[in-house]
Amino acid sequence: MKYCSHCATELEFRIPAGDNRQRFICPACDTIFYQNPRIVAGTLPVFENKILLCRRAIEPRKGFWTLPAGFMENGESTEEAALRETMEEAGAQVELVSLFSAVTVPMIDQVHIFFLASMPTADFSAGEESLEVALFDEHSIPWRELAFPTVSQTLRRYFANPSPTQPTHVFDIRPPFADAF
Amino acid sequence: MKYCSHCATELEFRIPAGDNRQRFICPACDTIFYQNPRIVAGTLPVFENKILLCRRAIEPRKGFWTLPAGFMENGESTEEAALRETMEEAGAQVELVSLFSAVTVPMIDQVHIFFLASMPTADFSAGEESLEVALFDEHSIPWRELAFPTVSQTLRRYFANPSPTQPTHVFDIRPPFADAF
Ligand SMILES: [Zn+2]
Ligand SMILES: [Zn+2]
Repeated sequence: MKYCSHCATELEFRIPAGDNRQRFICPACDTIFYQNPRIVAGTLPVFENKILLCRRAIEPRKGFWTLPAGFMENGESTEEAALRETMEEAGAQVELVSLFSAVTVPMIDQVHIFFLASMPTADFSAGEESLEVALFDEHSIPWRELAFPTVSQTLRRYFANPSPTQPTHVFDIRPPFADAF
Repeated sequence: MKYCSHCATELEFRIPAGDNRQRFICPACDTIFYQNPRIVAGTLPVFENKILLCRRAIEPRKGFWTLPAGFMENGESTEEAALRETMEEAGAQVELVSLFSAVTVPMIDQVHIFFLASMPTADFSAGEESLEVALFDEHSIPWRELAFPTVSQTLRRYFANPSPTQPTHVFDIRPPFADAF
């Protein structure tokens, strides 16, 4: 971030009046450019005690398995984002049950949220960002080939207690476990 | 958003290859500028069945009451953001219990998350962004003077069921109820 996106003036990086953090500030139009974490929304889709996973067709972690998830867009709700990503990546129409996990990865300024979801039927298909999509029971999950620690930690917590009526699991991923991103 | 923040070239607004939404794109350095919702993190602090509220000293909704909350910053977790805002706005050191609500306001591209929190003592004080801070029981809550529907809806759901071991309340606020923001 070097120039003002409103007026193209070169930015300063300093603490604004009344603030306590350095921000990018435009000396010409006085705009302060705040930078905030982004939300990745997805689902933990369940069909008859099996979990739907996608093998990634894109970087990062191409070839590794993940839960369907992606960046939440402006104008949509967390639920809409999770349902959209599940349809786009796994071709699956799921029903959201509850918010299962909310995992911050401070090193990359992301918050990953996963909704527990039920699959009415075993219909799914690989979207453009997936090489393949498949159902796995607890013992067949490819634990060593999972893409991200947010996914593996969410799956471990789910198998430890698959109840749909528990408080959301809130935790964060710190180095060295954030290396995968 | 008019100019590239990397190279100051005037931006185009079009759908990038392989995407399905219009984005701001730099024709000189090919940077795509994604815009995503921001997280507002806060707490629902409880001391002996009373809730801690702050009367806002700043716009929007100056003079109205709110739960302590503010924008999550890069580099921190959702929990750290909620604790920091509670200290900054209400001068209260709380203990997080569970994630009580996650409320999207699509009209302004924000997701408000509130942790249920316990106050070990009744110590609190108004921070710079608060005119006053006070404890209210259910019947003394200033319902008509609450700042935001994310706050009033979170409080209503809490009094309907104050259990700390329930799934997070996930919902969204749509017009006309988003007018307050
Ligand atoms: Zn400017
Ligand atoms: Zn550029």
